[in-house]
Amino acid sequence: MADEREAVDAAFDAARFQELGHRLVDSLAEHLRQAQRGAMPVLPWVEPDEQVRQWSAEFAGGADPLALLERVIAGSNHLQHPRYVGHQVTPALPLAALCHLVATFLNSATAVYEMGPVATAMERLCAGWMARQLGWSEAADGVFTSGGSLGNLTALLAARQARAGYDVWSEGEAGRPPLAVLVGAQAHYSVARALQILGLGRDGAVPVAVDDRFRLDPADLAPALRRAEAAGRQVFAVVASSCSTATGAFDPLEPVADFCELAGLWLHIDGAHGASAALCPTERHLLAGIERADSVVWDAHKMMLLPALCTAVLFRDGRRSFEAFAQEASYLLHRHDPSEEWYNLCGRTFECTKPMMALPLYVALATYGEGMFGSHVGSRFALGRQFGRLLAEAPDFELPVMPTANIVCFRYRPAGVSDLDGLQAEVRRRILAEGSFYLVQTRLPDGIYLRVTLIQPRTALADLEELLETVRRLAPKP
Amino acid sequence: MADEREAVDAAFDAARFQELGHRLVDSLAEHLRQAQRGAMPVLPWVEPDEQVRQWSAEFAGGADPLALLERVIAGSNHLQHPRYVGHQVTPALPLAALCHLVATFLNSATAVYEMGPVATAMERLCAGWMARQLGWSEAADGVFTSGGSLGNLTALLAARQARAGYDVWSEGEAGRPPLAVLVGAQAHYSVARALQILGLGRDGAVPVAVDDRFRLDPADLAPALRRAEAAGRQVFAVVASSCSTATGAFDPLEPVADFCELAGLWLHIDGAHGASAALCPTERHLLAGIERADSVVWDAHKMMLLPALCTAVLFRDGRRSFEAFAQEASYLLHRHDPSEEWYNLCGRTFECTKPMMALPLYVALATYGEGMFGSHVGSRFALGRQFGRLLAEAPDFELPVMPTANIVCFRYRPAGVSDLDGLQAEVRRRILAEGSFYLVQTRLPDGIYLRVTLIQPRTALADLEELLETVRRLAPKP
Repeated sequence: MADEREAVDAAFDAARFQELGHRLVDSLAEHLRQAQRGAMPVLPWVEPDEQVRQWSAEFAGGADPLALLERVIAGSNHLQHPRYVGHQVTPALPLAALCHLVATFLNSATAVYEMGPVATAMERLCAGWMARQLGWSEAADGVFTSGGSLGNLTALLAARQARAGYDVWSEGEAGRPPLAVLVGAQAHYSVARALQILGLGRDGAVPVAVDDRFRLDPADLAPALRRAEAAGRQVFAVVASSCSTATGAFDPLEPVADFCELAGLWLHIDGAHGASAALCPTERHLLAGIERADSVVWDAHKMMLLPALCTAVLFRDGRRSFEAFAQEASYLLHRHDPSEEWYNLCGRTFECTKPMMALPLYVALATYGEGMFGSHVGSRFALGRQFGRLLAEAPDFELPVMPTANIVCFRYRPAGVSDLDGLQAEVRRRILAEGSFYLVQTRLPDGIYLRVTLIQPRTALADLEELLETVRRLAPKP
Repeated sequence: MADEREAVDAAFDAARFQELGHRLVDSLAEHLRQAQRGAMPVLPWVEPDEQVRQWSAEFAGGADPLALLERVIAGSNHLQHPRYVGHQVTPALPLAALCHLVATFLNSATAVYEMGPVATAMERLCAGWMARQLGWSEAADGVFTSGGSLGNLTALLAARQARAGYDVWSEGEAGRPPLAVLVGAQAHYSVARALQILGLGRDGAVPVAVDDRFRLDPADLAPALRRAEAAGRQVFAVVASSCSTATGAFDPLEPVADFCELAGLWLHIDGAHGASAALCPTERHLLAGIERADSVVWDAHKMMLLPALCTAVLFRDGRRSFEAFAQEASYLLHRHDPSEEWYNLCGRTFECTKPMMALPLYVALATYGEGMFGSHVGSRFALGRQFGRLLAEAPDFELPVMPTANIVCFRYRPAGVSDLDGLQAEVRRRILAEGSFYLVQTRLPDGIYLRVTLIQPRTALADLEELLETVRRLAPKP
C-alpha cells in the first residue's frame, strides 16, 4: 500500500509533469515545423496487423512516456502536411490542442452544471452563437454531443417525440404503424443507422432521389411520402444535407422547408460539414433556408480547424431540445418548462459524463475572432472550385460533378482502360504507400472515384496539380 | 484573403505554440501544487446564470488565450483537491492530459484504420488487455466508444440483433411482439434510456427487485421474466451492474449468468465503475462470474485515473462486436466473417470520426504498469469501507447500507429533525457554497442521502472525519 501511494504520488508530481510537458511541447513544435514544410510522408503506411505487432501489450510499467509519444507522433497521419487532402478531419489549431490539455487536466466534465460549471456556460454561449449564425432568434438553443452521428440521432429522437403524434418515449413503438423519415439518397450513413437503432429497419429511411448534381430533388419529396404511406409507414421528418459527405452537394433547403411546412414534418439538416458556410458571406447562400429547419447538426471539428470532436446539435425552438430524452410527454411542456433547468445538460444529450466539449471552440473564437473562420471556409471552398476547373480541363481525368465546396471527386481515365474501379483503387493504394498525399475514395452510382477534402489551410493549387501528376506517375500502365 | 492567410498562418505558428505551451504547462503545474495542498476551495460556486454572464459571447478576436485559460482553470472544479469526493469522475493523471494534447494536436482520429493507424492499434491492444483482465480468451474483442451510456447502447444493440430471433437491424421492430430487457432496479439510467431510444418505451426495461443491500435479487429474475411475457413482451437480455451508481452495490453475477444460460438470454454487465476491480486481487471476487457475460462496459475514466472519456465495450465472443450495426444478418456471420476487417472500427461503434480514445490508457499502462491501477482500486475501496465503519459508529449519522466499494451514501440525522430530505439538501448546498468539499446527493427509496465517491488518491480518513464535522457545523439548527 505504501508503495502504491508512492507510485501514485509520483504520477501526480507537479515537477515531473512540468518537465515532461515542456519537452513534449518542444517535440510537437518541431513536428509542426517539419510537417508544414512537407519534410515527411503525409502518412507512414503500415498494414493494420503489422501496426499492432509494432506495439507491446505487456504493461509491466517503466516505459519512457516521451519516447512513446514521439513514436505515436511519427507513426500517425500528419494532418499539418500541406498534402493532407483526405477525410473531413481538419489539421487542428495548436491552441485548440492546448485547450484539450487544460480540459483533460482539469477533467471538469459536464453532465449536470455543478460538475463542470465553466464548461456548461461555454457550451451555452457557443450554442447560442452558432444558432445566431444560422439566423435563429434568442429562442433557439442547443447542446454539444460526441460527434455528428450522435448529433443526428439526438435530433431524430427529438423529431420522433415531437411529430409521431403520441408519446413514443414513454409508450414505445409497438402496436403503432412503423415510423419513417424521408432522407436524401446521398445523406450520411449515420442517418440510416440512427433510424435502424430506433428499430425502424432499413425501410425506416425512405430515400429521396437526387438530381444530376447529387442534390436532394424536392420534386421527389411528395412521391417519396406517398411511397412511404403506401407501405404503411408514418413519416415524421425529412433530413437534408448541407452538404453531403460523398460529393459536397448542398441540398436546396427552401423547397424542402416549404414541403415540410405543408406536410407538418420536422426538418432536420445535417450540416456537420457545411453549416460553417454560415460564417462566410460569399458561401452563405448555400444555406439559404436553413433558418427554417427544426434542428441542425454542426461539427466545428470539420471546417473550423478544431480537433475531433466538437459537435453542436441545435434547435430553432430551444424547448424542443428537451424532447429527445423526454422526461415527460411533450404535451406537458407548457405546464413545466424544462428550460428552467437549461444547465443540467444530461437531460438533453445521451451522454451522462462528457468532456469540456465547447472549450476549444470558445477559446479559439475569442482569440482569433469569427472572421478568420469565415475566411478559411471561403478560401477552401474556392480552392475546391479551382481544382474542379483544373480537372475539367485535364483530358485524362473525369469529374462526376463540378464541385460546390471543398469536397471534390474525380477519376483517372486515360485512354484504353477497361477496369476503371480497379484503376482508382490501385492508384490510391500506391499513393498511400508512397506517402506523397493522403486522399480517399468513394463509391458513386457509376463506380469508384478518388476524393479529396481541401481542409488544410496551406494546400495550394500547385499541390493539386502535383497530385494529378502523381496519379499519372503511379497509375499502373495498361 | 491575404489577411486571412496571415491570420491562419499565425494561428499555426510553431514558435507561438511553443511559447504558449510552456507558459500553460507552468500554469497547470502551479495549479496542481496548490490544489493538492488544498489551498483553494474544491469548487468555486457560482449560480449557472451568473456563470454565463461572466463570459463574453462577442467573438471579435484578440483575447489573450493564456489569461482566458487561467480563468477557466480557476473557475472549474478542482478534482486534484484531496477533498473532492463528488461524482465518479477521477482526478486525471497529468500524463494522460499530455496524451490528450498529443492526440488533439495530431487529430489522427479513427473511423477506418487509415485515418488513425496508431490509434486503431492501441485501441485493439487495450481492448484485448481489458478482455484478458475479465478472464476472457483470445476470442474476445471490443471497441472504444464515447462514454458508458453509448457503450451500454452499443452492447444492447448487439444483444437485440443476436437474441431477438429475427434480423431487427434490417427488418425493424414493427409487427413483432415488443422487446424488453430485465434490468436491476438500481441500474444506471442510461440503460432505460437506451431501451427507450430503441423504441421500447418505459416498459422496455423490466425492473428486477433488489435486496436490502441494493443488489439485484436473482430470485426475482424468473418472476420478472414471467411478468414481461405476461405483458406480451419478448425478453432478449439481462443487465446487471458492477457496481451500481447510486450505492456502489455489486450485483451477484454467478446466479444471473446461470439464469441467462437457462433462459437463452444475453448477459450484459454495466461495469463502467466497477470492472476496474478486476485489476485488484483483493477486490476481484466482487466480479466473480463476469467471465460468463456476453458483453461488458468498462470506463477507464472512472477508477483508472484517466480523464473523460475512455470507455471500452467488450464482447466475450469478438464476432458479436460486429452485430450492433449489422451490415448483414447475423445468421450470415459464418459465411463472411467481418472480423477480417477488425481494423475499420466504425463498423462496430456508432461514431464515425472519433478521437484517439485509447492513447492515454495505453501510455499510462506502459508507463506506470497495471499494478499501480489495481492498488489504487484496492486502496479506494478499502477507504470506502473504513468510512462506512466511521459512519456506523457516529450516532448522528445513518447509513442505508454498509459500503462494498468507494461509493458511500449516508445522511445526517441528529435528534429532533422532521424534514430529513430538506436537511440533507440544505447542508449540501451550504458545503458547496463554502467550497470545503464537493460531494453529491442521491435519492434512495426512503429519501435523499448525501453521497461520496472516494476516487481522489489523496483523500484520507482524516478528510472524511472532517467532512462529518463540516456537516454538523453547517447543518441548519432545528
